[in-house]
Amino acid sequence: MAVITILGAGVMGSAMSLPASDRGHMVRLVGTPLDREIIESVKSSGRHPRLGVKLPPVDAFHHSEFARAVGDDTDLIVLGVSSAGMAWAIDRLCETLSQAIPVLMITKGLYPSGDTIATLPDHLQAEVKRRRGLSLDIAAIGGPCIAGELAARRHTSVVITSRRYEFAEELCTMLAGDYYHPRPSADIAGVEICAAFKNFFAIAVGYAVGSLERLPKAENGAFNYNAAAILFDQAIIEMMVITRHFGGEDHSVWGMPGAGDLYVTCQAGRNSRLGQNLGRGLTYREIKAGPMKDETIEGAELGITLASVLEALTRPDAVDGAALPITRALLDALVHGEPLRIPWDRLHAVH
Amino acid sequence: MAVITILGAGVMGSAMSLPASDRGHMVRLVGTPLDREIIESVKSSGRHPRLGVKLPPVDAFHHSEFARAVGDDTDLIVLGVSSAGMAWAIDRLCETLSQAIPVLMITKGLYPSGDTIATLPDHLQAEVKRRRGLSLDIAAIGGPCIAGELAARRHTSVVITSRRYEFAEELCTMLAGDYYHPRPSADIAGVEICAAFKNFFAIAVGYAVGSLERLPKAENGAFNYNAAAILFDQAIIEMMVITRHFGGEDHSVWGMPGAGDLYVTCQAGRNSRLGQNLGRGLTYREIKAGPMKDETIEGAELGITLASVLEALTRPDAVDGAALPITRALLDALVHGEPLRIPWDRLHAVH
Repeated sequence: MAVITILGAGVMGSAMSLPASDRGHMVRLVGTPLDREIIESVKSSGRHPRLGVKLPPVDAFHHSEFARAVGDDTDLIVLGVSSAGMAWAIDRLCETLSQAIPVLMITKGLYPSGDTIATLPDHLQAEVKRRRGLSLDIAAIGGPCIAGELAARRHTSVVITSRRYEFAEELCTMLAGDYYHPRPSADIAGVEICAAFKNFFAIAVGYAVGSLERLPKAENGAFNYNAAAILFDQAIIEMMVITRHFGGEDHSVWGMPGAGDLYVTCQAGRNSRLGQNLGRGLTYREIKAGPMKDETIEGAELGITLASVLEALTRPDAVDGAALPITRALLDALVHGEPLRIPWDRLHAVH
Repeated sequence: MAVITILGAGVMGSAMSLPASDRGHMVRLVGTPLDREIIESVKSSGRHPRLGVKLPPVDAFHHSEFARAVGDDTDLIVLGVSSAGMAWAIDRLCETLSQAIPVLMITKGLYPSGDTIATLPDHLQAEVKRRRGLSLDIAAIGGPCIAGELAARRHTSVVITSRRYEFAEELCTMLAGDYYHPRPSADIAGVEICAAFKNFFAIAVGYAVGSLERLPKAENGAFNYNAAAILFDQAIIEMMVITRHFGGEDHSVWGMPGAGDLYVTCQAGRNSRLGQNLGRGLTYREIKAGPMKDETIEGAELGITLASVLEALTRPDAVDGAALPITRALLDALVHGEPLRIPWDRLHAVH
């Protein structure tokens, strides 16, 4: 039995308490400053208001109690904050840790670093090393996991990756249970790239649904699944090009972190809805001012954050220029305010 | 402008008349003995009763008029019969052809040949060579294409493959248009294997939906998308193992013929429905005697046809034994009458 302290009590962080607790581990759930009501609810009734379930027995803490939650017996810290909360979380870790406690990251994110991209696990590792002189074992989770389904104990499979592969294996053994099926992966670049980019490309797949509304109604009632499949597959192809470019491996792309997670992401969610609105002919600005006001759309933010790196990749004279037509079209829509235009005759031309 | 004669007036063969005619080719549509009513309808009103659309101008012929339809000016024969109709179609070709006319096959199918599998294009080529001494250029289509959507001129992308790659390229150039986007591929084995096996594996993905009905209702209303994603991705992994084993290439599996076509196939259709019924706990025999009586389920028939070859691959001592747990589970359900049992803890263990 281990002591697992989860920082971030949103849906994904909190959902992790189920497989952890069901495997017999002691779970402490710590909210961020944004999670005050959630923590109050868990403290008083055990219910997580956004997950819609009663959590298993966990000790709940407010953000100011993080050090007390970690104590001197925490074996694993699970980082479940949002990408936007990473700087805050790193501050908390640096002020709290007096020894190296392993970290499992649910938080996803990539950011530009010169002409390449950097991952959050490497960023966290470097910051804690620089500020506290501690070398943490860090792992990250990828793959298809809708938090509400995990919280309902539905079968869920994920990939856990780490620069130290044995650590990823240990975590899989620690967390695997009847309905939670983590698998180790040594491909940290591939897992992180897919975990972030599946949101970006789900926007394009969503386009097929929205654009159907602009087409004349078919006399036989035809939908637009053929087009969705084209875009779904083009997404896999472009994730493969990007993953290879930044040192990841093919099997992550056609495996759970890429194709598997894209499949789930296309079923529902904000990235899909943005794509549907783009398919209806709205611009990104119109959507953000109207139907999706104040919503955080991870795939769009990724594209905007990485715009300079991706623009370089998609220039006509770049090695991969012709191989990334959807990436190019999404950048034009998200960064340059154009309508999303799918270049149908330029897809699947390269692999 | 070319003269294209389509043999088989079912939904898929007939839908091909749209991109062909819209590109300016002259199209002749020939029914099989089962297509009598369809041909009568097309002759009288131009409407295809099952596609639910008025076809573009085509000349319609009954099966007895095949030789007249081919005439001495047909540039390309499109084979659109069902797998079960292939023997009939080969007989018609052999009695009709006096010179080698290129053939584009929509018909899909694999069959056992010793301890390996053979494809329909190779079978057709060998039969026409043996019986008529003619060497035909043969190509085949794979990839996601719902016939009713193609008939409604929705964007559709497919892969055309041939042992003579230039022939595949020529056909793509001949047929590509505003909404039809064929791409050449040299990987005939990979395209044919994926075209057939995506039906087989769609049964497993359908299981996730059906099994949800047997689970206690979640207090938060959770669905089963995580499980569907596991099975979707395991399907890609096992298609990859099978495709590699029989000499196909990875890019066909994560490309349009594999992942793209599986995506469409999982949206609807008989293979998915069989999977849903298996997920509800019914056996294959119960389903065939009840909710899917008299329906042809291509994925199930493929599994049964190839059982001996696949059983050998999935034996515990076989090279790929551990890599094909879903294949094994599907064979147990389709061939041996067992309930479909997903071995969740043995998935994604190998790639």
